[in-house]
Amino acid sequence: MKAFTNVKDLGNLGVAVKEALEVKQNRFAYKSLGENKTLLMVFFNSSLRTRLSTQKAAFNLGMNTMVLDINQGAWRLETERGVIMDGDKTEHILEAIPVMGSYCDIIGVRSFARFESKEDDYNEKILNQFIQYAGKPVFSMEGATTHPLQAFADLITIEEFKKKERPKVVLTWAPHPRVLPQAVPNSFADFMNEADVDFVITHPEGYELDPQFVRNAKVVYNQDEALKNADFVYAKNWSPFNDNNYGKILSKDTSWTIDTKKMSLTNTAFFMHCLPVRRNVIVTDDVIESPQSIVVQEAANREISCQVVLKRMLESLSCK
Amino acid sequence: MKAFTNVKDLGNLGVAVKEALEVKQNRFAYKSLGENKTLLMVFFNSSLRTRLSTQKAAFNLGMNTMVLDINQGAWRLETERGVIMDGDKTEHILEAIPVMGSYCDIIGVRSFARFESKEDDYNEKILNQFIQYAGKPVFSMEGATTHPLQAFADLITIEEFKKKERPKVVLTWAPHPRVLPQAVPNSFADFMNEADVDFVITHPEGYELDPQFVRNAKVVYNQDEALKNADFVYAKNWSPFNDNNYGKILSKDTSWTIDTKKMSLTNTAFFMHCLPVRRNVIVTDDVIESPQSIVVQEAANREISCQVVLKRMLESLSCK
Amino acid sequence: MKAFTNVKDLGNLGVAVKEALEVKQNRFAYKSLGENKTLLMVFFNSSLRTRLSTQKAAFNLGMNTMVLDINQGAWRLETERGVIMDGDKTEHILEAIPVMGSYCDIIGVRSFARFESKEDDYNEKILNQFIQYAGKPVFSMEGATTHPLQAFADLITIEEFKKKERPKVVLTWAPHPRVLPQAVPNSFADFMNEADVDFVITHPEGYELDPQFVRNAKVVYNQDEALKNADFVYAKNWSPFNDNNYGKILSKDTSWTIDTKKMSLTNTAFFMHCLPVRRNVIVTDDVIESPQSIVVQEAANREISCQVVLKRMLESLSCK
Repeated sequence: MKAFTNVKDLGNLGVAVKEALEVKQNRFAYKSLGENKTLLMVFFNSSLRTRLSTQKAAFNLGMNTMVLDINQGAWRLETERGVIMDGDKTEHILEAIPVMGSYCDIIGVRSFARFESKEDDYNEKILNQFIQYAGKPVFSMEGATTHPLQAFADLITIEEFKKKERPKVVLTWAPHPRVLPQAVPNSFADFMNEADVDFVITHPEGYELDPQFVRNAKVVYNQDEALKNADFVYAKNWSPFNDNNYGKILSKDTSWTIDTKKMSLTNTAFFMHCLPVRRNVIVTDDVIESPQSIVVQEAANREISCQVVLKRMLESLSCK
Repeated sequence: MKAFTNVKDLGNLGVAVKEALEVKQNRFAYKSLGENKTLLMVFFNSSLRTRLSTQKAAFNLGMNTMVLDINQGAWRLETERGVIMDGDKTEHILEAIPVMGSYCDIIGVRSFARFESKEDDYNEKILNQFIQYAGKPVFSMEGATTHPLQAFADLITIEEFKKKERPKVVLTWAPHPRVLPQAVPNSFADFMNEADVDFVITHPEGYELDPQFVRNAKVVYNQDEALKNADFVYAKNWSPFNDNNYGKILSKDTSWTIDTKKMSLTNTAFFMHCLPVRRNVIVTDDVIESPQSIVVQEAANREISCQVVLKRMLESLSCK
Repeated sequence: MKAFTNVKDLGNLGVAVKEALEVKQNRFAYKSLGENKTLLMVFFNSSLRTRLSTQKAAFNLGMNTMVLDINQGAWRLETERGVIMDGDKTEHILEAIPVMGSYCDIIGVRSFARFESKEDDYNEKILNQFIQYAGKPVFSMEGATTHPLQAFADLITIEEFKKKERPKVVLTWAPHPRVLPQAVPNSFADFMNEADVDFVITHPEGYELDPQFVRNAKVVYNQDEALKNADFVYAKNWSPFNDNNYGKILSKDTSWTIDTKKMSLTNTAFFMHCLPVRRNVIVTDDVIESPQSIVVQEAANREISCQVVLKRMLESLSCK
């Protein structure tokens, strides 16, 4: 495995989930794989869960870890050729990335959408330059448009909690005071479309996600209808994908907040969210504190999803 | 050991000190205890000694370590239920803490007094929520009202340097330009009251500490009288505890600064301070540089006090 | 090896380079040396290459690492005796340094020139206090006036790429928008003067470096003449050393930028720079992207130069 940015990088998804559940049973079984191997984590944006779960996964595999926090103000990278660099950018990405690659064996990169240019965001300009120039396996710790470690953890969690062979999984938009990226819903759709689930997306009109991730998923504009008989409710805010409204907020409609009344429409569904979550905006206190809420278990599986990715990358390295 | 916030958590104090001195003789003897175990250090406030000594103690025990610096501005936690979180707090402590707990085996937390509410400070709101919700052993790396790793290190140092069975130990207030918490003097009193020492506290009127920590200690308002025949002088500033003056400065009286004249009243006492110390405010250059100054040895014992706590927590984990 | 700040600390330079090339062949051969040993890295200034390469070198040797970022604003050290510390400096260096030394086995320190006082900078006030008071081996991760890990990596790189016994190495000044220290050119000259190379320095008048580093090197004010038949071109900006212009910028003359025309004067020279480099200011895109550019390989050797220094310090420790 040379890069991890989407569901296809995992190959057979059933095999990957099975591997995850095995890893979870015995986290230290592959500790020798990471001997003398170093993980570099590069953060262009802040992080709590990803920072900790990724380090823990690396420790489980016996790796050393290094964390580089790139303060956007302090250390700006030039990305264009031909520029006379006499301004505030002190280094070119074409030097910085291969140098970082030379000091480690695997690189994780976090670089959020900037909402300055939809094209730049959806081209994953930063992440793809790491993949191209690092000379080492690179995985996304949340890019501008996808968050595959989260979606893989979500799928593992659904596998653990599902009560029927093919559960109904509903991804629902919810309101939020700020402009948020589409990375989490994109990757969730990317994974659910390949998983053995009945997948439904619901959101207000104007919040349609990128068709490359939605694919053949059922899209329903009526949230109540979508929630009917759901086995899992995955709430998340995102901002509009369409060109006219990219980087804007179209709705803060609080009737989309998940509360007990909404949950009562479901098949006693489990409640999921990637965290951090704003209570009583995305979801009410009583729902997130109910026994059906599995947000903490879901976050705990971030260690496992990451460990599968690191394990596979280490296995590729040792095959060289 | 499930939590460490005060002297009682150590059980028999003589046994704990003996264990500390043994650990100090052979720091790596228990390295297998920490195999495959990860320490998470959460800092709500900045740190030098605690950050380094705690990591070193964990390394001695073979643990992995992760450090999370929570910039108070960047990452604010909501602590109340029922709040509509549409402001600047992006995550609720009820989610954040169990998630952090899921990625590690032991958690250290630093969270200073905020002086916004004496009740909140003395309830140790942040630290106690970690203890309640983390699901893992939690120790204080200095809370709002206690700093037990410091006081335990202080006691170890007194044990190492004492020249008589029951030395006289004087905790003396000293002036300072800023409002400082009571955490260090509280814990020092907490430990000295349980130790085999003749313990005296001296400070200007109005600087009385919380009675739950002072207990039966002798309080003397005349510093010169208190210092007579002292074997150890522990200088420290703190701000008033009483309700009317909580968070204020009543005195900057420089006649309380420890100088050679003050030290000449003692029984050639050793000088102690938790550091960082403001020279020529708390203590003069010549006293802190004298052979009787043991501030560096005292700081070095922070590694040892922490290692005993981590060792006991690891032993509890392996008993499960 | 008790300290590493200049070429003399390495002893016989040929032996050191040979050791470096052996280490590079088998980076993990000395892993047992660092068992139960901890490296503390203290940064008074920001860092990318040094931060990562030094950690990696320590991991190769089996050491634990701790990183302390001293934000200049947040944590200011008093350095003078006799000062009444009632201002913004909360700790004296005479306490802070031995305490840091007590928690580790080796210390790396980065502390740049401040350009407030040439005397302070050239006395290496911060670095030398660490050497004097830490009680542990100390190495420079770039001081105010030298950057020996960089220069050692440069020499290793020249050794790897040279095509003749005694290559011609040209250190050339190049323009830059900001006031930069002399640390890199000073150490480069320090090392080249002891190496088996034909060493030439070229710069505009007024940019003469400190004679203690220039020693008997040939200084040429005409860049074109200097570059003739060069086998290695090392470009770097620095600000004037002479008292009248210390901390100022005398020239931003872009005719000194290294471009293909300049490189055509050489003996198909390799291009070197310590990075980060401003493209089209120091060097053009086409030169730095050409096959003759070895800036990434040079940066990669920072891991190796550091590993030799750490290895020798660990060997000294185990001889005690």
